Formats: sequence, C-alpha cells, structure tokens
Amino acid sequence: MPSLLEPGSRRAIGVVDDDALLAAMTRVELAWLHVLKGSAANLNEPIALQLADVEDAGNPVLPLVKALRAALGEPELHRGLTSQDVLDTALMLLARDATSRIALDLARTADSLAELASTHRDSVMAGRTLTQYAVPTTFGLKAAQWLSGVLDAEDAISSLTLPAQCGGAAGTLSLVAELVPDPLGAPKRFADELGLAAPELSWHSRRTPITRLGDALVETCDALGHLASDVLVLGRPEIAELHDTSAGASSTMPHKQNPVLSVLIRSASLQAPQLGAQLHSCAAASEDERSPGPWHAEWPSLRRLLELTMTASNQAADLVADLEVDQAAMRRRAESAADYLLSERGRSGDPSSYLGAAHALVDSVLARWEGLR
Amino acid sequence: MPSLLEPGSRRAIGVVDDDALLAAMTRVELAWLHVLKGSAANLNEPIALQLADVEDAGNPVLPLVKALRAALGEPELHRGLTSQDVLDTALMLLARDATSRIALDLARTADSLAELASTHRDSVMAGRTLTQYAVPTTFGLKAAQWLSGVLDAEDAISSLTLPAQCGGAAGTLSLVAELVPDPLGAPKRFADELGLAAPELSWHSRRTPITRLGDALVETCDALGHLASDVLVLGRPEIAELHDTSAGASSTMPHKQNPVLSVLIRSASLQAPQLGAQLHSCAAASEDERSPGPWHAEWPSLRRLLELTMTASNQAADLVADLEVDQAAMRRRAESAADYLLSERGRSGDPSSYLGAAHALVDSVLARWEGLR
Amino acid sequence: MPSLLEPGSRRAIGVVDDDALLAAMTRVELAWLHVLKGSAANLNEPIALQLADVEDAGNPVLPLVKALRAALGEPELHRGLTSQDVLDTALMLLARDATSRIALDLARTADSLAELASTHRDSVMAGRTLTQYAVPTTFGLKAAQWLSGVLDAEDAISSLTLPAQCGGAAGTLSLVAELVPDPLGAPKRFADELGLAAPELSWHSRRTPITRLGDALVETCDALGHLASDVLVLGRPEIAELHDTSAGASSTMPHKQNPVLSVLIRSASLQAPQLGAQLHSCAAASEDERSPGPWHAEWPSLRRLLELTMTASNQAADLVADLEVDQAAMRRRAESAADYLLSERGRSGDPSSYLGAAHALVDSVLARWEGLR
Amino acid sequence: MPSLLEPGSRRAIGVVDDDALLAAMTRVELAWLHVLKGSAANLNEPIALQLADVEDAGNPVLPLVKALRAALGEPELHRGLTSQDVLDTALMLLARDATSRIALDLARTADSLAELASTHRDSVMAGRTLTQYAVPTTFGLKAAQWLSGVLDAEDAISSLTLPAQCGGAAGTLSLVAELVPDPLGAPKRFADELGLAAPELSWHSRRTPITRLGDALVETCDALGHLASDVLVLGRPEIAELHDTSAGASSTMPHKQNPVLSVLIRSASLQAPQLGAQLHSCAAASEDERSPGPWHAEWPSLRRLLELTMTASNQAADLVADLEVDQAAMRRRAESAADYLLSERGRSGDPSSYLGAAHALVDSVLARWEGLR
Repeated sequence: MPSLLEPGSRRAIGVVDDDALLAAMTRVELAWLHVLKGSAANLNEPIALQLADVEDAGNPVLPLVKALRAALGEPELHRGLTSQDVLDTALMLLARDATSRIALDLARTADSLAELASTHRDSVMAGRTLTQYAVPTTFGLKAAQWLSGVLDAEDAISSLTLPAQCGGAAGTLSLVAELVPDPLGAPKRFADELGLAAPELSWHSRRTPITRLGDALVETCDALGHLASDVLVLGRPEIAELHDTSAGASSTMPHKQNPVLSVLIRSASLQAPQLGAQLHSCAAASEDERSPGPWHAEWPSLRRLLELTMTASNQAADLVADLEVDQAAMRRRAESAADYLLSERGRSGDPSSYLGAAHALVDSVLARWEGLR
Repeated sequence: MPSLLEPGSRRAIGVVDDDALLAAMTRVELAWLHVLKGSAANLNEPIALQLADVEDAGNPVLPLVKALRAALGEPELHRGLTSQDVLDTALMLLARDATSRIALDLARTADSLAELASTHRDSVMAGRTLTQYAVPTTFGLKAAQWLSGVLDAEDAISSLTLPAQCGGAAGTLSLVAELVPDPLGAPKRFADELGLAAPELSWHSRRTPITRLGDALVETCDALGHLASDVLVLGRPEIAELHDTSAGASSTMPHKQNPVLSVLIRSASLQAPQLGAQLHSCAAASEDERSPGPWHAEWPSLRRLLELTMTASNQAADLVADLEVDQAAMRRRAESAADYLLSERGRSGDPSSYLGAAHALVDSVLARWEGLR
Repeated sequence: MPSLLEPGSRRAIGVVDDDALLAAMTRVELAWLHVLKGSAANLNEPIALQLADVEDAGNPVLPLVKALRAALGEPELHRGLTSQDVLDTALMLLARDATSRIALDLARTADSLAELASTHRDSVMAGRTLTQYAVPTTFGLKAAQWLSGVLDAEDAISSLTLPAQCGGAAGTLSLVAELVPDPLGAPKRFADELGLAAPELSWHSRRTPITRLGDALVETCDALGHLASDVLVLGRPEIAELHDTSAGASSTMPHKQNPVLSVLIRSASLQAPQLGAQLHSCAAASEDERSPGPWHAEWPSLRRLLELTMTASNQAADLVADLEVDQAAMRRRAESAADYLLSERGRSGDPSSYLGAAHALVDSVLARWEGLR
Repeated sequence: MPSLLEPGSRRAIGVVDDDALLAAMTRVELAWLHVLKGSAANLNEPIALQLADVEDAGNPVLPLVKALRAALGEPELHRGLTSQDVLDTALMLLARDATSRIALDLARTADSLAELASTHRDSVMAGRTLTQYAVPTTFGLKAAQWLSGVLDAEDAISSLTLPAQCGGAAGTLSLVAELVPDPLGAPKRFADELGLAAPELSWHSRRTPITRLGDALVETCDALGHLASDVLVLGRPEIAELHDTSAGASSTMPHKQNPVLSVLIRSASLQAPQLGAQLHSCAAASEDERSPGPWHAEWPSLRRLLELTMTASNQAADLVADLEVDQAAMRRRAESAADYLLSERGRSGDPSSYLGAAHALVDSVLARWEGLR
C-alpha cells in the first residue's frame, strides 16, 4: 500500500489496497449468493472491518460475512464456501486488475523500446562484457534486447490463468452439494460471474496459481531491472551515453540530477525475487486441506509483489518514453576505443564496419513486436 | 503498516508507520539543527508530504526539508546533512522503538516459558524425532528449549548497535567541516541528542548496521516460529497435548477452534528469512558513496521486518501465557508408546524412569533465565 | 554433485556433474566446428582441465578451447563464439538431460498417484484445515490433489524452451558474419545439431531461459514437497494413516523406522525456492553485453537445482510407489471424529455420507491424467 | 566441493569436502569413545561409505558407525549419541577449520586495505552517489570504508560460538545417564576433547548456532561483495581509476583483460544471502526433537556457504594485494568534474580543498585496525 518508503507506490493506489480487497471480497460473496439463489443482492454502503476482529478470526472473511449478512439480511450468504474460497478468489480479482495494468504498461514500454530500436538501428556503440570493451554493437540492438525481455514478460503475464477458488470447507464441495442441484457446475458459474477461470478442482493446498503468478511478476521485474541497470551504467557521467531524465534533486547538492526512475526500478527488482521465493516456500510447505501459516504468509507478499510490479512497470514506461540517447557520445567512444573493439577482428578501422548481424537481429525482434500489436 | 492481510498488525500500530517515520525524520532534522545552532526549534504542527513529491525526489527527505524550512523559517535546517543521513537515522529511531517493544515481549514470553518449564519439569511426554517416537522427554525440557531460543533472541536484540548516520553528501562531512568548529564531534553530538550510538564513520554504503538488525529480527522470528510449529503439531486433535487457546472460529464449521496465534506466528516466520536475505543482497550490491537501488530496496523491507517481528513477538507472549498443557494426555501417550520410547534402553518400564538428565537441563536454562532478570 | 551431505544424490550421478559438463562443452564446440566447416571432427580421448586454469580464465571454456585445439589440430575451433555461448549452451544440454529424467519420474509418480486416487476413491478420511478436523474427504481426493500438482509440474517441465546460446563476443555475431555466408542461419544450424531450440537472438544478458527453467524446477519441488509434507503428517504415529516404507534405521533406537524419502524430499523443497530466487536476482542485475558476477553466480545454483529436482523426483516416484495406505485407520478416525467432521452439516451420521463432490473431482483429475498418457 | 562451475573453489580444497567430513565424523566418534571409556582408540585406515547406505539411513552417520565398530572392534562406539550429535558436531569442526582460514584471509585483506588507506589518505577522487558526481572524497577514505566492513566481518567471524552437539536420542542424555556417572559433564568433556564450545543443552531443533554461523558468513560475503562491486565500477575503462590485475583472457578477443577476481567475488556475494536465508527458513520450521527435512536441508547449504566464503575471502586477499590504483586518473577526473563536485560548497576551486574530515576519518579506521593487530 502506498507509503513514504515506497516512492512511486502512488502509481498503484486503489488497485490492491485494503479498500480494493474489501470490495473484491464483497463482490465474491455477492457472486456466490447469485450462484446459490439465482438473484443478485445489492450492498448500499461499504463494509468496514475492525482489525481486532480480523485477527480473532485469523483472516478478514469471517468478520466480513457477519457484516454482510447483517447488512443484507441474507443468512444464506457465504453458505457452502469457506474463508479460503473468498480470500483466494478476491486476491485473484486483485491480481487480474493489477496484471491488466501491468500488461498495459509493458505494452507502452515495448512500444517505446521498439521505436528506440528502430531509430537507433545504426547507432554504433561500444559493446561491453564483464565491464570491459568487447566488440562494437548498436544501441538499436541493446534496445531490442530490452524489448525482447519486455515481450517475454508480457507473454508471461498474459498467459496467466487466474482461477476462482471454490471448494468449501475441505475442497469436497460438501455443503454446496446439499445446497445446489449441480455442485460440480457451481464453481464454474461462480468463476464466470467474476470473470475468472473455472478451477478444475480447489487449490487450497496446491498453490500453483499463486506461484505461477508470482513467477510472472518476478520475471517482469527482472526484465525491467535489467533495463534499469543498463541505464544506470550508461548514465554514469564518465560514460554519459544515456540520460534518465527523471532528474531527482539532491537535498544538499544543487547540481545533482539523480536517475530516480532507474534507481527505483532497480530497487523493485532487488525486492521481487525474495517475495517470489517466499511464495514457493509456502507452496512447498503446504499440508492438510488448508495450510497453517504457509497460506497466511502468501497474502501480504503477493500483494506487495503485485504493487511493486505495477509501480515498476508504470515507472519503466515513463523512463523509456523520456530516455535521452546521446548517439554522438556513443559514436565518439566507439571510435576512440576502436583498437579494443576491433581486436577480435584483428584489423583496425571503423567500428561501424564490424557490427555482424546486429541490423538483422533488431529486425527480427521488431517483427516479433509487430506481430503482437 | 496495519492491514487486513496482516492479521495482528494492529499490535504494531504507530511504531513504524508513515506517521512515525515522519515524526522521526522531523526529530532528526531538529536534532541536527540543535547541533548546528546550539538552540532548539519547535514545530507547532506536523508536516504532511505528497507522495508525488516523494517520488520526484526519490525519497521523502527533500520534500520534508522544504516543508520544515518553510514552517520554521530556518534555511539552515539540514545543512551539512544528506538525505541518507536523515532517512537512515530516522529508520534507526524506528528500529529502536520497535526493538524495545520486541525486547519487552520476548521478556514476557520468556517469563511464561520459564514458568512452564518449571511447572512441567516432571511432565513426561513422548520425544519425537523425524516425526516418530524417540525416547521419553518432559514438557519442561521442551519449554526450556523454547526458552533458550527466546533468550538467544533477547540477547541478539539487546546487543544491537543502532548508530546515527552522519556523513554529509559523500561521507566526508564536507559541508559540516565548514559549518562547525569540530566536525568530527558533530556526529557524536547528533547521535547523543537522539539517543543513538555515535558512528565511527558514515555507513552509507557499508550496511552492517542494517544487516545485523535484520539478522537479529529474523533470529527472533525463527525462535518464535519454532515454538509455533511445535504448538501446531502438538495441538493436532490426534495428539492434543497442547492447546492454543486463541480459538479462531470458522466461517462454515461451528465446531472449529483454529490455533490462530500459532498460525500467524508461523506465517511471520515464513516471511522473515527472505526479508533478511534481501537486506544482505542489497548490502552486497553496495557501490559508490550511495547505492543506486540497493539502498532504496532496504526501506520497505526493513520496516516490514520490524513490523512482522513486533507483531509476532507480541502474539507469542499471548500464545504462551494462555497455552494449555494437557499433562495427563502427555503421560497417557508416553505410557501407551512405552515400548517404542524405551527401545533404546532395551527394557520396558515406566517412561518416567528414562529421562536422562532432563531435570538438570531444565534447571540450567532456568538459571540462565534468572540470571537475566 | 553426489556427496555424503546430499543423501539420494547418487540418483543423479553422471547427468550434471563435471564430467557431463565437460562432455557437453566438448559436444558444443564440435557442433560449432561442424557449422563452420561442414565436416565433423572426432575427439579420441576426453579432455581434463586444471582448476587453476579455470579460475585464471574465469570460466572453464578458455582452457577447454586450448586443449581441444591442440588435441584436434583445429585452430578454427570455437572461432566466432564467445565463452558464454559455449557454457550457456552446454548448461542447456545438461538441463535437457536432467529435465528428461525429471519428466520420466514425474510420469511414474503420476501413474502411481492415479492408481492411488482410483483405488481410494471411496476411502473416507478426516479432512483437516489449519491442523484441525474440518469435514470428511477421501484419500482418493487427496491423492488426486497431489496428482494435479504433479501434472502441473510435468506441464511446466515439458513446456520449457531450452535454446542454444549463439551470439559471439557481444551478441552481434560479429566474427560469425566474417566466417560464414549466412550468419543469421548459423545459430539455427548450431542449435539443430545439438537438438536445442534456435535462439531468436542471444540471451547473454537477458536470462529468461534460465529463470523459466529455474521456476519450473522449483514448481516441481513445490509439488513434491507438498506431497511429502502430507505424508509426514499422516505418517506420525498418532495419526498413522499413511506409512512411508523407506524405513530408515536409527543409530541408537532399534525400533525406529524413519520416513527417509519423505524427509529428503521435503528437504529438497526447502532448498529449491532460494536457488530459484538467486537465479532471478542474477537476471535482474544483468548489465552490459555480459554481466560481471550475475552470470557466474547462476552456474553452481542452476546445477544444484537440476540435481536436487532430479533426486527428489526420483525419490518421490519410489515413495509413492511403495506408500502404504491404512484405509481402515482412516475410516476409524473419521468415524470417531464424526461429530466434528459433520458439524458444518448440522446433523450427525456416517462421514461417508458427507463427501460432497469428492468422487467426481477425483474423476476429473483422472481424466486429465489419462488425456496425457 | 571444487568444481568447474565454481572457479576458485580449488582454494577451499580439503577443508569441507566429503573426505574432511568423514575425517571429522570419525574424530567425533573417537572423542566420544574416549569420554565413555577413558581411553583412546586409533583407526588405522580411513573409512569409505557407500552412497546407497547413506540414503537408506537418511544420513552418513549410521553407515559410519557400522564401519567403525567393525574396524575397531568396539561395540560401545557411538553409544549414548544420536546421529545428529555426530553430524552437527562434525559440521562444527568443519566450520571451525573454514572460519579459521576465513579469519586469516580477512586479516590479510585488512592489512592490504590499511596500507591502501594510509597511502592514499590524500588521493583525491570524485565522490559518487546514485551513480552521479557528489562531492570530492579520497581513495584513502574509500579503502577505509572497505576496511571497516572487513573488520566488522572479522569481528563477526571471531565472535562465533561453535558448540559441540551432545544430547542423545531426544536431547535428554537418556542413554548417557546410564553409561557414565556424570552425564551432565559428558558433553563438556566431549567438547573439550574436540576443542569446541560446550553446549548448555542440545540444539537439535534450536538452530541458533547454525544461523549465527550463516549470518556471519553472509556478512563476510557482503563486505567483500561491496568491495568487488566498487572495484568493478571504478575499473570500467571509461573510469579506469582502479585496475583488478587478475586479468582474465577472453576466448575470442585478444585485448581483453577481465577483472576475474572481482567478478568471482561479486558472484559469491550474489549467492550467499539466499543460502543464509535457507538456514533461517529451516530454523524457523523446526519441530519435535529433530526436524524432518529442515535439519537435512541445512547440510549442503551450510557447506556451500562455508566453501563460498572461504573462496571469496582468499580471492579478496589476492585482489586487494595486487590492486592497482591510478591516483593521477583520480585527480584528473576530480579536477575536470570540479564544478559538480564543489556545487554543494557554492564556489569553485581545487577539489582537494573540500575534503571535510576525510583525513581524520581514515585515521580513526586505521586506529581500529591497529588495535586489532
């Protein structure tokens, strides 16, 4: 949730915070009521929960159910479900909203990168490996590499399956089978109502939907972190081939123009892998029909990972849209380092004459990008 | 910060949230002003920051400085410091408040465990290794083992050094040396003012104070997670030797009494190690006089780890204070499993006759505990 | 690589160890020579490398190239490639061999689980959530849940794309373009020769192939860890509904029958997530045309993760094949706990009468399994 | 254990590998026999174990005990102990040997850094924050910062307590109490025999000794990773103020001089945090008198972390001893960037005139270093 210690988190306001969660849980309960009774109920005013009640119950569902039953006068509300059905499904709704925004921002980033790759198809620059000069490359190819990573992330995000959770107390649809004539069809109707995927069977203790979501988010942060790391290196004043124009001021040095967006994106990419790992650790420690702790540990970490990826994706789209490329500086450096850059070839000359297939490689990435638009 | 997805986080309200951070940062700036000018300033109303300004600057310090200078009419405020001096120092103030509370809760937990260890010095129970019956033990010794872990954590927390950060723009005290006659003494006066340890030199890119704090917090969560894991196992209905009386209700099953506190403590212990690892990853990736990303990634993770450990420590104190021990069930099981429990000894009999040095071991832990009170 | 501290690692001998790596790197170099020259060379005797030479070069490729050129009298060998092309491609060959074995073992595990699910479709047992009795379920459904997780893992493993790496010094195919008439076709011929996927472009600093491989391996360990965790709980002597028959002896207690395979599988699942996270951290820290450290840190961790998953998959197949199910014990417990298990329903009776859609859910998983065979 | 994928691992040969482990376990068993019988036994030939036997038992102790009893004709050997006593104690012996070497290498590194700090007390260079020019600093202060981190790591390593493990089957000294007159004294005599710390009580499921060891090793890798990261940045050809002289060759580019040691040290620092986190995860998941999986997962990770830290420490000592400092390049850059570097001060001039307390800060770190020698 937005905070002073997460600069940029304002970009994700309202998507996965407590208000959004409460709205999503409420929507889940109403969708289920619709499945049970065939008719919809409307809630006139939002529900507020007390944190002490949430802790007493161990999760926010029980207090919500009490409040909703009272507000709606519907004792049937929630019948057949279990807390985990509601919370997992609500988190999938949040994940859907968050990943939709991430996908849009990745597409925006990809479009900017495609333009950079195309514009700078011939912008020669020094290739660098293990920090040292290697052979020449082009900035177009570097942008195409970033683009390829972003397209991979887009693929990963858009291929996700976000299923509803619907199993009842222990995943057998025990009470559902007493309440509706077609218990096996109920999860599907529930999922349809919410626009989520219908689960083959409940996943209370089989957490692939969570870990795959986590992996796709981490993969997204990886791709953006890679991009930001390169921008940070190439934006060092001694190199100065790229310029992150976000230009954060210093509290003490008037001349400072800090590469704020790159720094914050890199920061996100340093946090994401451990959050993803925790989701896996929880999945691996699953036991019984609901896990005592591993399930609970997922909630804040998944939310944090969604928020972090949303923020970083949005920041990356801005960073790339406004990235300044100093093509002349790239060329000057490549020329001054020509002896190094051409040592593989064994004869000196113009670095632009030793670009291998860089041009065609850029084109192949651009073709992939075009195919997706 | 408190949220619906972190049941129990209400226990940590006000210690490390944005309001507390803002107050701490303000206190830091005023303390420094005192060092610079020898006289104190007072702030009549709290400052509020805009999240957009925080992102523009890359951290919350710059907008705070602007607001404080305006509010106090003190253009000298912050002079000589750098953003990182203020933010790192403020986080140390938050850490001090959080660890004070953790220490109190660990002491409360330790006291309850000492009582359990003492009371159940002779309560025979089955020892279990790799999930199977081993030799007999006592519940007193089990409680003493938990106690020993909690005392270790107390040691770790109370041995922490929480230094102020004070180096100026690049750790040389550059501007400080122009502003005060004794620049080397300034960090010490600043630290004294705030009740923090005086830093030998700035630690902008040398993050031992952060990682050691993180390690101590993780160690605390480990000790509590161990305790909670044991309570969860021994509270299974088929074993039923312990009973976590927090008794969370189910949203669908009237009979359910869920071990909410144990579950939430275990959940915390599943989250803490990855947060600690991220702090180390950031420390290891430090570069230059301030790190572009590794520093920023620390902030939310350290805060989260402080909050998680505060919550879990407070919950553990409650859990242990109200833990029900079914001494008779322990004895019945030990007697019925006597053939297994005594197979090492090679002759059957009363499990209570094969307790080795359990009694004396309990006494030695109790002596350590008494020595600390 | 096999060791005393990794019991079971003998199951993975020869697939990813140094000998296999050396053979794979050699195969890679010979495949490339074939691409360059159109004719194959044969190596009569295996190459041995000195560890000091490996460190001097920073990786094992340079010393291998020297040795191979000398042994084959082929100065053209390796020309056009870079060390990373060879090492990354060789690791993909190792990954292919390892994942083939993992896939076979997962299929074997799935077959046993399908049989268990089918056989125990009607074996009523207590459902348990948050360690406490919930509603009745069947062991068939539990086995179907495990099966579903294993089939997900099989999907993940079999959907992997394992590309060759072929970019030359900085990913531009610089020298390749001087050596062969169709430089863009060379990576494809190289990949075909080795039976790997052809890379669209080099992935020297864009590590999706590595992180996706890692994620699939971790997902596999998660699924097996979940299974093992359940077996450990249900095999506790107080529950005794399942029995892991691997029956490890104790060094001191004659009666002990430790659930060795479950324990070791769970151990693997505790290690895998952090290895996967590290691969992501390295991917996110990528910079330049080859990363100074992030690339190197992948090697041992990826190998370890491959080995761990191979071992755990093979162990799981054995565990499940020999798992003893005590159907009578399950029924006895369900009946004795009927008051709890039926409290949701609100009237007492036979737990078998409150199984919801368990039967049909088992069938749907079995249908998925059959569709894959 | 040494491998082609861990360049530099030859530096750790023989300290923690299987041979060293087997020797340590044997030593542990003989020390215990001495405690039991008052007289020592000698083993004439080393024991070899079969990996299949290790897996059958779940750990290497049981097959070792069988082999040792046969070889020595001593059926009393191991009586009173449990497998975990032997394996944990043997790992502590390995840890002692490894940390002794680490301490020596850290001391060597510290000495070189102290010399650098002293020599370059006046070597002005650009300070850099968030990748951009900040205010001037000196290379002496940078070296002093590294030194301070290394001294912290030395402190952490030398403050470790490495206890013997001695509790018997379930930590009660059950059988020991039947075998010796003073069971509480036995662990102390055992520890003394081996030169380890005497445990207050067994730590079979309370893993502070393991996690504290892990934390100290990770802290060491952090400090070295920080140093290596700085060397990598400052060794970029566009900056060229430092030169890592390890100079690894490229397989294709004749001019390349790769900073091999810095790269490999940074690689270690990317791996260590996750290994440390896993040890914490295992500690937090402890249950019963011996944990089913969490204990086992520690073994390979702790060994790997010891090996990694040994290797990196030894490499760092070499790196720093041969580090080339281009004082003239530093000064040239500081002068050419003077407008930026002095903007905080608000007037132009010689960067050397704005070094704040850099000199005195270096002296204070050198005084700490001297105090430790």
